[in-house]
Amino acid sequence: MDGAPPPPSPAGLSAYVAVSQLLGLTLLATTGAWLGRYRGGVAWHSPLQFNAHPLCMVLAMVFLQGDGEPQSLQLCWAGNGGDTALAKDTGKVHQRPRAAPALLVYRVFRHEAKRSTKALHALLHGLALVIALVGIIAVFKSHRTKGIPDMYSLHSWCGMATFVLYLLQWFLGCGFFLFPGASFSLRGWYKPLHIFFGITLFILSITSCLLGITEMLLFKISDSYSHFVPEGILANTLGVLLVAFGLVVGYVLTREEWKRPPLAEELALSMDFKTLTEGESPGGGSQ
Amino acid sequence: MDGAPPPPSPAGLSAYVAVSQLLGLTLLATTGAWLGRYRGGVAWHSPLQFNAHPLCMVLAMVFLQGDGEPQSLQLCWAGNGGDTALAKDTGKVHQRPRAAPALLVYRVFRHEAKRSTKALHALLHGLALVIALVGIIAVFKSHRTKGIPDMYSLHSWCGMATFVLYLLQWFLGCGFFLFPGASFSLRGWYKPLHIFFGITLFILSITSCLLGITEMLLFKISDSYSHFVPEGILANTLGVLLVAFGLVVGYVLTREEWKRPPLAEELALSMDFKTLTEGESPGGGSQ
Repeated sequence: MDGAPPPPSPAGLSAYVAVSQLLGLTLLATTGAWLGRYRGGVAWHSPLQFNAHPLCMVLAMVFLQGDGEPQSLQLCWAGNGGDTALAKDTGKVHQRPRAAPALLVYRVFRHEAKRSTKALHALLHGLALVIALVGIIAVFKSHRTKGIPDMYSLHSWCGMATFVLYLLQWFLGCGFFLFPGASFSLRGWYKPLHIFFGITLFILSITSCLLGITEMLLFKISDSYSHFVPEGILANTLGVLLVAFGLVVGYVLTREEWKRPPLAEELALSMDFKTLTEGESPGGGSQ
Repeated sequence: MDGAPPPPSPAGLSAYVAVSQLLGLTLLATTGAWLGRYRGGVAWHSPLQFNAHPLCMVLAMVFLQGDGEPQSLQLCWAGNGGDTALAKDTGKVHQRPRAAPALLVYRVFRHEAKRSTKALHALLHGLALVIALVGIIAVFKSHRTKGIPDMYSLHSWCGMATFVLYLLQWFLGCGFFLFPGASFSLRGWYKPLHIFFGITLFILSITSCLLGITEMLLFKISDSYSHFVPEGILANTLGVLLVAFGLVVGYVLTREEWKRPPLAEELALSMDFKTLTEGESPGGGSQ
């Protein structure tokens, strides 16, 4: 892509991104430590099959979703305030991000074509969906083996609703933004909803994990939990780490100064488009 | 206050506000129904003292905080992108909201002086803090009576952290925005943090309530919960209502089109101030 080199990242952003990644890896390690040290580890064809559930869900619905989320915002943050641009190569009108957080994934792929970045974003969330599905299968199969009913708890209600909406969000995201066909006005209408539900589903995923931790502790160590046993403290710490990961990712995503300023070429294209469409409503444009 | 009459509310906003209030009242009624129908009701000097805890926390940390939150955003949404204005009456420089959601409380008090609106905002959150404190005292006293240890569960860790940070946010909010003394630059620095933590604490409050519901169900009906007994379904529904309330309030607060546009007089004052401070950084201004 031509144009001036991108400006350096804002002060502090890299540190926050590093902290988020460190927290993400720590919470994965803590989940592994809990399951390995106190719950006998993970094995598919055994009574330990259930343990694949927390491991898969934390990995997929928190770590991978959190790392994919910033890219989502990079692609979609613009909402209704984004710069509308006319692509040089295709002549098609599309919405460019007005501003976006420049997280690690974004900076790695900032010189790639927009379509490739979108595909990677969809791929990351798709991978999260597949791993989460494995985690859900694990708990249903484990319940069947042990004769435990499904879907009676608040954790299961929240978790399943989150997964189904996340799957729906993925399909809608692909349909609106990745594959051709959706009109400019339709994309502009859906974009802010995609962003809002992206962040909401990330928060709901963390909430569902906290509910799952509480359930598991009260099922497994209800007699000793109130005596501050190491397993209880470790699992509570995992809960705190999940909240901290959500906080840092959420802060990086929403901090005003860390949104990506439009590049010079985007501003120029935006001006061109403004001249072309003067007097027209942005929602009224066609693809 | 002089100036043109405010423009009408955006389409759909009133409906969302009405839904949020309906959800808020429904979740209070559901909490009351759960405690009254299945948990023997609420009484302070009795074994039912514990039941004051969920009632106070849902009322204070979800319903009142959620209703106070939009006002917080009305006052503080501007962040770094707000219009800087020179007040006609006092000659003091201060930051006006660039855009803010016009919720019921805001529309009721939109013609009041800014200081009165701030005071009401602080009062609402202060009332929430007092009621939440009563709820916390209830659980500590109940634990002491029954010989149950305190602060061992993830619910207690999340809940107490949320309450302490909410109290801190209230004191900082009063110190920075309600009482004179904080400089313009200091207020400008703190404002986006106040907004971010305001929304974060609202989300954490709902999460803590969900954890509390799960704990209470597994303590009280662990044998029958998996058989889809009415109490379990009612309490799960309360959890879903809490999530729905958070979703609707969060959507109203963050929807771009529903932020309050600056009034004509604010724009004019902003221009005046821009002329006065040309070349200066907004952060460099004095109180």
